[in-house]
Amino acid sequence: MSKGEFDFIDRIRTAFATPLAEGFVGIGDDCAILPTEGDHDWLISTDMVIEGVHFLRHDATPEDVGYKSAAVNISDIAAMGGEPVATFLSIALPKDAQGEWAERFIEGYRTISERYGVALLGGDTTSSVRDIAINVAIVGRCKRGTALLRSGARVGDTIYVTGPLGNSGAGLRAILEGIERTVEVERLIQSHYRPTPRIAEGQQLGLSGRAHAMMDISDGIASDLGHICKASGVGAQIELDKLPLSTELQTLCAQQGWSATSLAASAGEDYELLVVGTPDLAQHIDCPLYPIGRITEGTSIEWLSEGRKVEFSQKGFTHF
Amino acid sequence: MSKGEFDFIDRIRTAFATPLAEGFVGIGDDCAILPTEGDHDWLISTDMVIEGVHFLRHDATPEDVGYKSAAVNISDIAAMGGEPVATFLSIALPKDAQGEWAERFIEGYRTISERYGVALLGGDTTSSVRDIAINVAIVGRCKRGTALLRSGARVGDTIYVTGPLGNSGAGLRAILEGIERTVEVERLIQSHYRPTPRIAEGQQLGLSGRAHAMMDISDGIASDLGHICKASGVGAQIELDKLPLSTELQTLCAQQGWSATSLAASAGEDYELLVVGTPDLAQHIDCPLYPIGRITEGTSIEWLSEGRKVEFSQKGFTHF
Repeated sequence: MSKGEFDFIDRIRTAFATPLAEGFVGIGDDCAILPTEGDHDWLISTDMVIEGVHFLRHDATPEDVGYKSAAVNISDIAAMGGEPVATFLSIALPKDAQGEWAERFIEGYRTISERYGVALLGGDTTSSVRDIAINVAIVGRCKRGTALLRSGARVGDTIYVTGPLGNSGAGLRAILEGIERTVEVERLIQSHYRPTPRIAEGQQLGLSGRAHAMMDISDGIASDLGHICKASGVGAQIELDKLPLSTELQTLCAQQGWSATSLAASAGEDYELLVVGTPDLAQHIDCPLYPIGRITEGTSIEWLSEGRKVEFSQKGFTHF
Repeated sequence: MSKGEFDFIDRIRTAFATPLAEGFVGIGDDCAILPTEGDHDWLISTDMVIEGVHFLRHDATPEDVGYKSAAVNISDIAAMGGEPVATFLSIALPKDAQGEWAERFIEGYRTISERYGVALLGGDTTSSVRDIAINVAIVGRCKRGTALLRSGARVGDTIYVTGPLGNSGAGLRAILEGIERTVEVERLIQSHYRPTPRIAEGQQLGLSGRAHAMMDISDGIASDLGHICKASGVGAQIELDKLPLSTELQTLCAQQGWSATSLAASAGEDYELLVVGTPDLAQHIDCPLYPIGRITEGTSIEWLSEGRKVEFSQKGFTHF
């Protein structure tokens, strides 16, 4: 749910003179890391969900908003290789959402929290004047020193994703364009409203010793891979033909004349994991892992289709 | 900044079936407690600040809003006897607040963060449609097992506060009524916009072994003391004549015909600590501690003025 973000926190972090203590990791990764004296590091992240920016009250059910508000935060813990422990829910509700809407929101929030064994440890409730504002802060943990940052990618590493891409983007487009809700279209819409945080996969990858960098796919790999490359000081080459695509996505895209590849690469909100590791990583992990490219020298991201370089822009991919 | 809250989180916590692990403390205190294997417990709290509910953009400077957003969270750590470590700032800004307003907000946020040695470890920035929404999550820590909860008050204990009450409420009233800003009035307004979290005091009290329950005064002792009594299963008796009042408050109240006692007991947002402990506690602490009453059997709060019972209501105190 990072649509509408602008680069503000990033700009101000340099303004903060307080240096971090040893072992702490701050702004710039999916979670901050707070080391303890014990066997675990704590992972903390926070995400805001704003009516009119991240959801429209007449499109999303309250249950879906509740589910997704927790899901995107749990996914931030997955992105570090951690297990979620507890959330803190702040919610500002205008008068017309303080009754049924709120109850149903909590129902969705609770559903995913119980599914992942995450406690609700605190929060804040307040009125708002007009729009609903939600903030979730999440605490997770991982074995000491095993958290996977964005900065560990090495030249020669393989780039993987944990599942099909583009489903969420196609689901959103189906909602916005009012496309008839067949069983397949409903499945894509579910991917948008109820993404699956890859906790078990993230933990396996974190403990494998063969994964070097990881994040979750919130903005689409075209954008997210840039964060890993920048943090690691490397470039990347992606083979677009290898992006895993679901049957539902391919069927709908064929019907509507949409580019499945563009949705898969840039629509975002899939919340699959984007993983960089050794070329043999998949053999040491018992969850699906799809190789989609490799880490290169330099700083740029190259896109290949049928062996030829293609250019990526707002309009999608075009051959040179 | 708890104005406008309604009892929603409290109602839903029972709906959460996930039981808490040993040593964890969840909803119902100033902070949640997350135990570690080491010498410290982690303390976590979160507070939301909404335009039009907690501040008006034309009254408060952006610096003040930034300062107070961090201050009220730091105060939650003080209320447990902890030291603040880091904050996570989420901020949703409409287009007309994304430039200068945001920069100045951060200036105030940074000022108090540096004063208390608190790092900014993460956050989220997003657009909003119309109103500014801010959420701060804070992480602090205290020596293992020393966090002061609301539930430890015992019959016979003395009730204390760490400083004068009512300044913030008088400052807010002066703003709202457009009262001439003399030096004294400015000081009261500063108490409202830039409260002082009592971190050093809270830590001393937490380590004293003689303080049994504590919280910070956000809604006024008339309301806040009720939380301690309910959590501890006790009653209380307050001597209104003992409430510490600043000279500025007394002067302004005399001029305007306001009741200083009512402001001190019920206006809130003073962010002094409300402490319950042994009758000799003040002798073991080297910060100001004002005894204002005692813990009694039963469940009710009695108010005394000049030795006689008085009744507290929305309109203030009235003799029986």
